[in-house]
Amino acid sequence: MSDKLDELKAILGEVADLGSAAAVLSWDQQANMPPAGGEARGQQLATLGKIAQQMATSEKVGKLIDDLKKEFEGADADSDDAAYVRVAARNYDKAVRVPPEFVAEQAVVTTKAFEAWVEAKGKSDFSIFRPHLEKVLDLVKKYISFFPPADHPYDTLLDDFEPGMKTSDVQDIFNPLRPKQVDLLKKIAKKPQVKDAFLYKKYNEKKLWDFGEEVAKAFGYDFNRGRQDKVPHPFQTTFSVNDVRITTRFEADKPLAMLFSTMHESGHAMYEQGVNPAYERTPLLGGTSLAVHESQSRMWENLVGRSMPFWEHFYPGFKKIFPSQLDGVSLKAFYKAINKVEPSFIRVNADEATYNMHIMLRLELEIAMVEGKVDIKDLPDLWNTKMQEYLGVTPPNDAQGVLQDVHWSYGAIGYFSTYALGNLVSAQLWEKINKDIPDLDDQIGKGKFDALLGWLREKIHQYGHKYDPQDLVQKVTGSRINSAPYVRYLTKKYSDIYGL
Amino acid sequence: MSDKLDELKAILGEVADLGSAAAVLSWDQQANMPPAGGEARGQQLATLGKIAQQMATSEKVGKLIDDLKKEFEGADADSDDAAYVRVAARNYDKAVRVPPEFVAEQAVVTTKAFEAWVEAKGKSDFSIFRPHLEKVLDLVKKYISFFPPADHPYDTLLDDFEPGMKTSDVQDIFNPLRPKQVDLLKKIAKKPQVKDAFLYKKYNEKKLWDFGEEVAKAFGYDFNRGRQDKVPHPFQTTFSVNDVRITTRFEADKPLAMLFSTMHESGHAMYEQGVNPAYERTPLLGGTSLAVHESQSRMWENLVGRSMPFWEHFYPGFKKIFPSQLDGVSLKAFYKAINKVEPSFIRVNADEATYNMHIMLRLELEIAMVEGKVDIKDLPDLWNTKMQEYLGVTPPNDAQGVLQDVHWSYGAIGYFSTYALGNLVSAQLWEKINKDIPDLDDQIGKGKFDALLGWLREKIHQYGHKYDPQDLVQKVTGSRINSAPYVRYLTKKYSDIYGL
Repeated sequence: MSDKLDELKAILGEVADLGSAAAVLSWDQQANMPPAGGEARGQQLATLGKIAQQMATSEKVGKLIDDLKKEFEGADADSDDAAYVRVAARNYDKAVRVPPEFVAEQAVVTTKAFEAWVEAKGKSDFSIFRPHLEKVLDLVKKYISFFPPADHPYDTLLDDFEPGMKTSDVQDIFNPLRPKQVDLLKKIAKKPQVKDAFLYKKYNEKKLWDFGEEVAKAFGYDFNRGRQDKVPHPFQTTFSVNDVRITTRFEADKPLAMLFSTMHESGHAMYEQGVNPAYERTPLLGGTSLAVHESQSRMWENLVGRSMPFWEHFYPGFKKIFPSQLDGVSLKAFYKAINKVEPSFIRVNADEATYNMHIMLRLELEIAMVEGKVDIKDLPDLWNTKMQEYLGVTPPNDAQGVLQDVHWSYGAIGYFSTYALGNLVSAQLWEKINKDIPDLDDQIGKGKFDALLGWLREKIHQYGHKYDPQDLVQKVTGSRINSAPYVRYLTKKYSDIYGL
Repeated sequence: MSDKLDELKAILGEVADLGSAAAVLSWDQQANMPPAGGEARGQQLATLGKIAQQMATSEKVGKLIDDLKKEFEGADADSDDAAYVRVAARNYDKAVRVPPEFVAEQAVVTTKAFEAWVEAKGKSDFSIFRPHLEKVLDLVKKYISFFPPADHPYDTLLDDFEPGMKTSDVQDIFNPLRPKQVDLLKKIAKKPQVKDAFLYKKYNEKKLWDFGEEVAKAFGYDFNRGRQDKVPHPFQTTFSVNDVRITTRFEADKPLAMLFSTMHESGHAMYEQGVNPAYERTPLLGGTSLAVHESQSRMWENLVGRSMPFWEHFYPGFKKIFPSQLDGVSLKAFYKAINKVEPSFIRVNADEATYNMHIMLRLELEIAMVEGKVDIKDLPDLWNTKMQEYLGVTPPNDAQGVLQDVHWSYGAIGYFSTYALGNLVSAQLWEKINKDIPDLDDQIGKGKFDALLGWLREKIHQYGHKYDPQDLVQKVTGSRINSAPYVRYLTKKYSDIYGL
């Protein structure tokens, strides 16, 4: 191996350590930190970020990367070292374009915007958030200006989460999907609604927690290299390929959400646990993109966790734990209830058939914002109009409409679409998996997931960041990301449940 | 404020942030980390340590400190800024003397020594540990050689934990104390032993935990700026003046140890929570020395937590929680039991009357090792001889003798004495507190601790590292550290309990 590569790896290894340390601090902030600890923690995270940024963008790193790019010209692009240099060079290029003063300014603006968003949502008053969102949008535009002009300014934002993906790619995927999903929803709406009142009875938190961990273990999430904790907003985080943690929460008004959240975060975690250990402390560690990551979490939560075979195996035990809540509820009735389709206001509570519509709405608004084609003051009305158009419902207030998600307050514009893309990829992979493992349903019906996880490890997980998302999906399924498998999946599933 | 002081504070503020981040990672390692996470965590901690060391010992910092020392010559030594420069200069001077290669070598040697110690203790076979301890001692001697010659080579080690304290100071304190403690123990040994079998019944862990937290809250440990977690070996740790955590453990064979451990660690934590918030992110944050720190933990654990007034208030409630365990046990009988004096092999389980003897034994052996006056192979015999001499017992094996403590395996030679000094300081302060708060016993008997904590905050806690330990004790009590108050305290307490 080249001496220069060794040298770069030593530096970026330390940068990775600082990133892992910051991840531990952030996890602790959510999971453990006493209320008064926030200010010091913010300062500690700022220092870690600043030092990591300085190290990652030093002249020395720039020189090493320049030299290594030349050295690896014409080298086997499929080798780990070539991938390392490619990804390190891309990260470096992005990092040096954004001046530290901008990062500092962004931190100040988004901290205030977040506070304003909390207040605005609490009072359901968009006017409180509006001036802050305008400033956030100005910063997003400024951020775009640091990069070479792309086909579309939104491309620059998207590329941070889906390397190589363009706005037009996403539009080409979503445009044909939208009418199909709207059509499916209309058909479902004409059918009698399934009953699900028993899902909202009182369920014991500890028992749900234990059942969730039993399921996660059965899936193959390795608790020797992970753990679950309680937080206000669930997430998955990685400190090392051997320390990959998940978090969940309990909401008394929708108790089973905790169970599906555990499955979801386990899906993310198994991806991170499955990356080639040789990528530890390198930019190749972690999932390749948010969409591919979401394909894993959604697969375990929905394609597995909301499937009939899964519950064929787990329902008898689950019913024993909650006998009074599920008294007289058949497997079929339970299965239908957890798959109930109902247009609703809140994205995070949306079912599989309506979820993507929430995303498309946000993507369209974000693109319009970046293009300057929408005045921020008009966002609430636009939001509500689109909700009516796509889902047939109009939020009663802005707290349940344009103010529901936190993302814009911290400047995270550009990644909502990855959630929907993740759904699509999960179904694409699922069709291929079922070809490769023809008795997959039978295995799941027996509570066996090792062949499924083995397939995912071999085809997806081990590669980490080595391949860009579209290339990886192409390599595994033979096609780029597209919506056809997801439409087939939804149609089949809901035809059965709703008798379409 | 001087521009240079601002500049130094900015750099050392970031060094402090890195230290806090490392503390979070270490805490997580003990309290939460999944089994497989250790290797990556070690790497992350090494990187944080390396970067902090580079920043703290940079030429720029050296130049700033040189300039500031000149600038502050003749300035009011009692000002916070003067204390800042003094402590920063001392830390810098120590840090630059120790070469990074030495730190790296030490890490390798002590990691292996720790593993060998674990095995040696498990097998009660000193010969496994011996060659490693020899290497550790060589490194300790090498460490001493980086510093200017002191009156005694052991001074250099001691100064890291008790700034300004010399070996002869400690010997001058311990020498007159030893015969008095031996004499007291002999008198106690002639009296009938107190009964304490009820302390070793089965106690519910959760109930003890809750009672312990109730006591810690009553003391004044602020859970809004702290929390308690479970670990294999209890400790207290600080991430900020507003995030000071404690840990504890449950041992089924001595259940109440958890309660006294919570009191002990709360004492440390209240010290750290009480430091002037202006010292955040500076070298002045934290307790001034290990001995003064231990004076706080011992005071809350022993002088308060094992006192009659404390249990006059808490015993009725405690008895309600554990009615069967304490059936027929009077307050007086309980008080006597938790203060039982019994020479034993293990330091960490020692009572107030025997504890210091364990320390003196270690101090004498450490000094002899550093002086080269003892061959490592002779340590077990020397240990056992001294145990017989001071406590009248001989360990049945090395696991319960020379191998019992982990400290030497990681090169921590020089700080055992601070534990005993802490006991002495606690009694010195206690006499002064009782003069300043004449009804302290009555207050404690009512479960009121605010006047006591207020006194400690005002006289000790707020100053953090501002004053060196001897100066602080002198300032508060009018005397340097000495053993007379502790002897008076022990004599009075055990005269009552054992009817001497």
